[in-house]
Amino acid sequence: MQIHATQQRSLWYDEVSATLRIIDQTRLPFEFRVVDLNDVDAVCEAIINMRVRGAPLIGVAAAYGLALALREDNSQASETDAVAALLETRPTAINLRWALERMQKGLQQVQRSEAHAAALALAAQICEDDVATNLSIGEVGLPLITQLAEKKADGPVNVLTHCNAGALAAVDWGTALAPIYLAWQRGIDVHVWVGETRPRNQGASLTTWELARQGVPYTLVSDNSGGHLMQHGLVDLCLVGSDRTTARGDVCNKIGTYLKALAARDNQVPFYVCLPVSTIDWTIADNVADIPIEYRAPAEVTELLGQDQSGALHKVRITHKDCPALNPAFDVTPARLVTGLVTDQGIFPATPTGLAELKRKLDQLCENSLV
Amino acid sequence: MQIHATQQRSLWYDEVSATLRIIDQTRLPFEFRVVDLNDVDAVCEAIINMRVRGAPLIGVAAAYGLALALREDNSQASETDAVAALLETRPTAINLRWALERMQKGLQQVQRSEAHAAALALAAQICEDDVATNLSIGEVGLPLITQLAEKKADGPVNVLTHCNAGALAAVDWGTALAPIYLAWQRGIDVHVWVGETRPRNQGASLTTWELARQGVPYTLVSDNSGGHLMQHGLVDLCLVGSDRTTARGDVCNKIGTYLKALAARDNQVPFYVCLPVSTIDWTIADNVADIPIEYRAPAEVTELLGQDQSGALHKVRITHKDCPALNPAFDVTPARLVTGLVTDQGIFPATPTGLAELKRKLDQLCENSLV
Repeated sequence: MQIHATQQRSLWYDEVSATLRIIDQTRLPFEFRVVDLNDVDAVCEAIINMRVRGAPLIGVAAAYGLALALREDNSQASETDAVAALLETRPTAINLRWALERMQKGLQQVQRSEAHAAALALAAQICEDDVATNLSIGEVGLPLITQLAEKKADGPVNVLTHCNAGALAAVDWGTALAPIYLAWQRGIDVHVWVGETRPRNQGASLTTWELARQGVPYTLVSDNSGGHLMQHGLVDLCLVGSDRTTARGDVCNKIGTYLKALAARDNQVPFYVCLPVSTIDWTIADNVADIPIEYRAPAEVTELLGQDQSGALHKVRITHKDCPALNPAFDVTPARLVTGLVTDQGIFPATPTGLAELKRKLDQLCENSLV
Repeated sequence: MQIHATQQRSLWYDEVSATLRIIDQTRLPFEFRVVDLNDVDAVCEAIINMRVRGAPLIGVAAAYGLALALREDNSQASETDAVAALLETRPTAINLRWALERMQKGLQQVQRSEAHAAALALAAQICEDDVATNLSIGEVGLPLITQLAEKKADGPVNVLTHCNAGALAAVDWGTALAPIYLAWQRGIDVHVWVGETRPRNQGASLTTWELARQGVPYTLVSDNSGGHLMQHGLVDLCLVGSDRTTARGDVCNKIGTYLKALAARDNQVPFYVCLPVSTIDWTIADNVADIPIEYRAPAEVTELLGQDQSGALHKVRITHKDCPALNPAFDVTPARLVTGLVTDQGIFPATPTGLAELKRKLDQLCENSLV
């Protein structure tokens, strides 16, 4: 993405200082701050406190976290401990597990003495793959927007999104925003409705900031507004990301996604989920209840960070003192509400058959690459 | 309602100082401040800026506003001007129109010289009627909770509400919260899920505050959480208020109500709307698009008031500067999603037939009172 007229990623490894660098997303949109992560503990802290967030990005961060752990201690025990610690940071997004399993598989192929160097190379590969995958998602999803643009007599194609599934949720490009960026770059008149995404406000604080930097037109709305906009014909398409998708097509994503999907269905608005295939959990087939839902601190609901007119930041409470709150971070959108899954391998129906077809394609790719 | 161990209304007329007194709801939950309104301009300002809000309460406030206008100038022109100014304050809630029409009808019966005194008496009557009506809504709705309590093996009856349809939205009792207060007073184990209600946070700032003062157990959740709670069987009943209900049964209420109704339907959770019959707009029969939806300032989405740890209040922006936002204040829940309308006259189906039955009952009552 473009930030301050330079090409920027959400995360990169600096060879010279041998540190992992991230944009601290807890400071956005008020301050653009790059933070150095020098060990696995720092990576865990950054994931837990959502300095890095978004399913694809935390997978890449975890991969580098493991590499940093192996720099300090090259042993198998160190690897096992680091994987356990990283897996524990956040329970819902499957990419963490996926990236760490890919790292561990790769490390099994090398001598212990080479573990650190191999881990660093593997993490770099996962990082580059993430960029390529998300660009592919953009290309696969682009026709959804261009087709709507062709059908529209006038005015922009209005896309509603939820949370941040943009470049900040990945190394670059993002998932749900990738087709939008490509459409915009190709001169298509597109406008994004950004849902605020309480309680952590990733829509208000990250997506609007990110879209503004790329020059894409957008308007912030409260999470409550999505249904009203759809009832009045103001949404042509919904594009959201996913933290974990089941083999049946159920989509776990940021809390509130389910409500938007219900409204989309009620108003015949297409509802697509954009995801790298790495977010699919092939081990959960038949029950949305099997996905572990992260419950975060109640204070995330009752308090928030904002900036006053003088530019000073304040953490403020919006309720009376000691107001009890519950903070589920994700919900599950049943497959029946999903129009299609936009993956780097194509668009697939959110059905067991559709997912099975995708699986066959992936297995085929795997076999071909082994030959 | 109980506040600081005294019985308190949201609004009252002080005979000695001849002023209308209100709890300034823009200061809650941080400060309990009573404000004096001495003329119609002050009443208009209080309604526009939501110092008083809630369909029933703004109707009563408008009635007193007209009385204050007639104190300054008893003429018909003054009455016409005041009615026009009050009607313009907020477009969606029908009670404003209903209360002012009732006032004007009453004033037609008296000499011009008696207009001020008559207006004050009429406003007092509307105010007392509001309390009685809401208590009736509580009594009518109470069995919905008691029946669920009888069926539950253990644990409280979990009621989800949206916005503030409590005592603060009326002179006392409230609409959606009235059955809950009565249930609690009768020893029924009830727990309220309070939706935050962005962008003005009436759930977080008013409903939690009000429930806490009455001792009713409650938990705040983000607006996005409603669907997740219902999917996991954590909601037994939804109770919301209404700003305007059509003769067909469509319910206009605080933005986001529609999304909760969709989730309730998808999870077989009963969804009841609690309303005084004065919020029914008999003139709109066949189209939800006919209800004027208020669009409020974008800054209500991008900025909010909160309190820091030292107790200082700050108005903070939660987005980058100049973030465009749209702020529809209400949405319309189609009648098909409403389980029933809980009115002071009984529970009616949200259908043309149900509403026609209610209309017949009201006409009958009217005839009887004229005899």
